[in-house]
Amino acid sequence: MDTSAAAASCALLEDDRPVAQFYTDAHLTHSQTIMPMVEAMFACSKTSVGDVDLFAVSTGPGSFTGLRIGVAAVKGMAQALNKPCVSVSALEGLAFNLSDRQGLICPALDARCGQVYTTLFDADNGMHRLHEDAALMAEDLCHLLAKQPEEKTITVLGDGAQLVLSTMHRLYPERTLQLPGSHLLLQHAYGVGLAALCGLRENRMQTVEPQQLVPVYLKLPQAQRELQLKRKQQQEK
Amino acid sequence: MDTSAAAASCALLEDDRPVAQFYTDAHLTHSQTIMPMVEAMFACSKTSVGDVDLFAVSTGPGSFTGLRIGVAAVKGMAQALNKPCVSVSALEGLAFNLSDRQGLICPALDARCGQVYTTLFDADNGMHRLHEDAALMAEDLCHLLAKQPEEKTITVLGDGAQLVLSTMHRLYPERTLQLPGSHLLLQHAYGVGLAALCGLRENRMQTVEPQQLVPVYLKLPQAQRELQLKRKQQQEK
Repeated sequence: MDTSAAAASCALLEDDRPVAQFYTDAHLTHSQTIMPMVEAMFACSKTSVGDVDLFAVSTGPGSFTGLRIGVAAVKGMAQALNKPCVSVSALEGLAFNLSDRQGLICPALDARCGQVYTTLFDADNGMHRLHEDAALMAEDLCHLLAKQPEEKTITVLGDGAQLVLSTMHRLYPERTLQLPGSHLLLQHAYGVGLAALCGLRENRMQTVEPQQLVPVYLKLPQAQRELQLKRKQQQEK
Repeated sequence: MDTSAAAASCALLEDDRPVAQFYTDAHLTHSQTIMPMVEAMFACSKTSVGDVDLFAVSTGPGSFTGLRIGVAAVKGMAQALNKPCVSVSALEGLAFNLSDRQGLICPALDARCGQVYTTLFDADNGMHRLHEDAALMAEDLCHLLAKQPEEKTITVLGDGAQLVLSTMHRLYPERTLQLPGSHLLLQHAYGVGLAALCGLRENRMQTVEPQQLVPVYLKLPQAQRELQLKRKQQQEK
């Protein structure tokens, strides 16, 4: 399940194969829409929540309210059925939309004030993480991208992709970034499920008890923490 | 809507943007599942069938029964609301899953007896059709693919993709074909909608009245017609 941003989605996977994928991006309140969508998904695929062996959910970064709704919903189902869960980075789930491509994959979620939640994967021969999830100024992400090998294409996706593209065009006009099609631009639950399966296979992730699921809000970046500290010091003077 | 093969899907697009995408591949009867799925899609995205300006449907080639169900369902909705329709080749809709990639895109649907329903698109700088929809022996498709420029990657998708890959490996082991990820391997209604939008924009397609929608079954290929003719001639002797 993914409710980390404006779109909401749930998917049912049998290994890598999508048995069902339900996705809406209608700017509605996730608390009203996600559980009816889950129910419709099971009904339309003649399956039931009892058939699920493992629950995977985007735990962040992303919309604070959205993340809490998704985590609570999955926690509820998994706890009732006593099934294991996997906490998936919303950025890693998003990157897995494009896990069948070549080159570098850069998920970028709008974190407001010119910042993006971002990371970087190399998709050549499997998905290799090159950077921890972080909140960066778009400019700082572009400095990082400009240092990548020129022979690698870089594909940016997520609701922060346009900000990254325009910043890159301003700072490094010689370096072209790719965008995927609209159907792969935003978070999809299928990517979250696939990221969990690959993470478990490669021992990069592990299952947790339902009650251990928590939203992961990235810390404020250093620049803002320093700014806050500075303001605090000024107030104290 | 797409019900041309084992998977069933419906999607709602606002220009290229997917507002909703509902997909199941649970090997169920489309007649039982597609309309509840359409209803759930509208309910979960707080839209209604009355909001649809244009209906697009996969009209073939594909499963004869599946196509009739999809065409009948869309015809019913569009006729009730007096809205225009677009008839989309199931192969073109499938190719549009990968319209954001480079190189050649070869949709291949299993047509039994070693044959595939297939065509070929060049996805560099927009989608350009290189071949009419046809039923070909997998060997004949591979001869065609082997003649394509070597610098072009060829991505095969659809439920006939594995047959094409194994035949290519046998006949032309030096030429590598690509497969997309499982989430893009089969027909999706989003691709059908996008193919219709692009076809209309580029004047390659036109809208029709709902009552003009008909399933498109490709003729038997020449080889089989000749075989039937031969058998008939032998019976007459």
